Amino acid sequence: MKKPRVVLALGGNALQKNGEATAEAQKKVAETVGEIVAELANNYEIIISHGNGPQVGNILIHEEQAATDKAPAMPLETAVAMSQGQIGYWLSQAIYNVFASKNKRKNVATIISQVVVDRTDPAFKNPSKPIGQFYSEKEAKNLAKQKGWTVKEDSGRGWRRVVASPKPIDIVEKRAIMDLLDDGAIVIATGGGGIPVTRTKILKRLKGVDAVIDKDYAAEKLAELVKADIFVSVTAVPNAYLNYGLTTQEKIGHITASEVERLKKYGYFKAGSMLPKIDAAAKFAKRGGTGIITDIASLKAALNGKAGTIITKN
Amino acid sequence: MKKPRVVLALGGNALQKNGEATAEAQKKVAETVGEIVAELANNYEIIISHGNGPQVGNILIHEEQAATDKAPAMPLETAVAMSQGQIGYWLSQAIYNVFASKNKRKNVATIISQVVVDRTDPAFKNPSKPIGQFYSEKEAKNLAKQKGWTVKEDSGRGWRRVVASPKPIDIVEKRAIMDLLDDGAIVIATGGGGIPVTRTKILKRLKGVDAVIDKDYAAEKLAELVKADIFVSVTAVPNAYLNYGLTTQEKIGHITASEVERLKKYGYFKAGSMLPKIDAAAKFAKRGGTGIITDIASLKAALNGKAGTIITKN
Repeated sequence: MKKPRVVLALGGNALQKNGEATAEAQKKVAETVGEIVAELANNYEIIISHGNGPQVGNILIHEEQAATDKAPAMPLETAVAMSQGQIGYWLSQAIYNVFASKNKRKNVATIISQVVVDRTDPAFKNPSKPIGQFYSEKEAKNLAKQKGWTVKEDSGRGWRRVVASPKPIDIVEKRAIMDLLDDGAIVIATGGGGIPVTRTKILKRLKGVDAVIDKDYAAEKLAELVKADIFVSVTAVPNAYLNYGLTTQEKIGHITASEVERLKKYGYFKAGSMLPKIDAAAKFAKRGGTGIITDIASLKAALNGKAGTIITKN
Repeated sequence: MKKPRVVLALGGNALQKNGEATAEAQKKVAETVGEIVAELANNYEIIISHGNGPQVGNILIHEEQAATDKAPAMPLETAVAMSQGQIGYWLSQAIYNVFASKNKRKNVATIISQVVVDRTDPAFKNPSKPIGQFYSEKEAKNLAKQKGWTVKEDSGRGWRRVVASPKPIDIVEKRAIMDLLDDGAIVIATGGGGIPVTRTKILKRLKGVDAVIDKDYAAEKLAELVKADIFVSVTAVPNAYLNYGLTTQEKIGHITASEVERLKKYGYFKAGSMLPKIDAAAKFAKRGGTGIITDIASLKAALNGKAGTIITKN
């Protein structure tokens, strides 16, 4: 029997325990993720899509602070590609090694992934996603002039560059990803939400654009395109909740996509936090798949229908 | 009829015209490479393996100079993975766009690649490959103590870290690369000679190691493993030469692998320059394939046997 195909969207912080950002520390955390993924691979075809917030943040800080004429800073879209190489390497080696420990050889592959966004996406008119280092107001405004950046004050912590967060509409490497899955590989793709690219109108040529695609939306698009059965947003909490953190907090178990729509309208889920996760999972469920929100500890139980927030069409 | 399978080993400087290192400038050069690769793809299956000298150099400089406790520097092996993402993205987008300009959709994929080296490779006893930034003698010796680096004076220009350059013995992602080729994709793999990893003795678990694998040797190993018909080291000159630059300079056209062996013994080829290229090409020829050394302008003619240094078994 064909194994169900599962896309796991791993949180951007999932590889940094207590914010420890050395390669060594992040590789250690990747090993824990690897253990779980390798176990699931007995029963599921696995595609991993990971966030890159803290990692691409550090790359940008290094690129910008140490830039010279001879060694210029890489732009955000190229930095995303660099973070895909970095995190993909750590994850694929960690997963490979779990199989190796059982004296098995597993085909694990990281594909550098470009994710297409629409040039006319309204998000480009309202850049809102802070990236890179903090600046003083003066520095920030100078950089804005110099480089055409949009800058904003970020929650009292200083000024930062902000970029658009447009919706993913296609994945350039979808066929390559599918090829590898069909051959039994565990595939790591669309890391950090993918390298954002736009397409020219007629010939559909690609062009990188400085933006940040939400990793849950990108992973959901990936799940659609590779005809996955299950989409899981793996986050820091075992479930989605209503009134999270309040005394009236309620855990969401099994729920339908249309019920999620209704709760969304009441403003129950926070933008930039649970909203994109539950939104992506509900979108996937609406198309007939199973959308799950849970944490790494509950992942196996959630796939068996025994934990997590599980969203289905009806 | 099946198209012949060709591995192109592109020089590390092939993407930097006049040393221009901005992403924009390197993408422009990638477009030129893309035009040639796309044309060859009519008649050949193409795998690209590229160098990363200047790119990983700049990544290391940025990582080291702007490192803080919160945003620590990535080690060399992870920096190689980052450069694979970076250059692979530029190349795959450029190649895709040449097809798009003809209103065609091409499957182009970059695979993050780990290349296995032997822990007992004698190269580890004599680190010789300079990497990263220059330091004063004092700084260099301090870093050597602090980080366990080997440092050396580099041709009167200052002190640098040196690492081993061991030989490649296997490629972890060979099956994934083969899957994609078999499905008609143009594949970019083993960038920068690959992320160097060693294997544990019994279970063959992988572990990254700070080293630099010569990109021609890695590409030749790739050519062996994917059962390529032709291996091309694409360099800055149209041919290999005897007495290069001297009045007695002689261009090498068609030559046998054993004749190359003989010339090598006379010391005709420079280590770190033509030696690894002709060595890799001759190794491939000895196994029955065709090994070619040429520049990008002569590449098409060389594949037709009308230019370049062409090495065969007999």
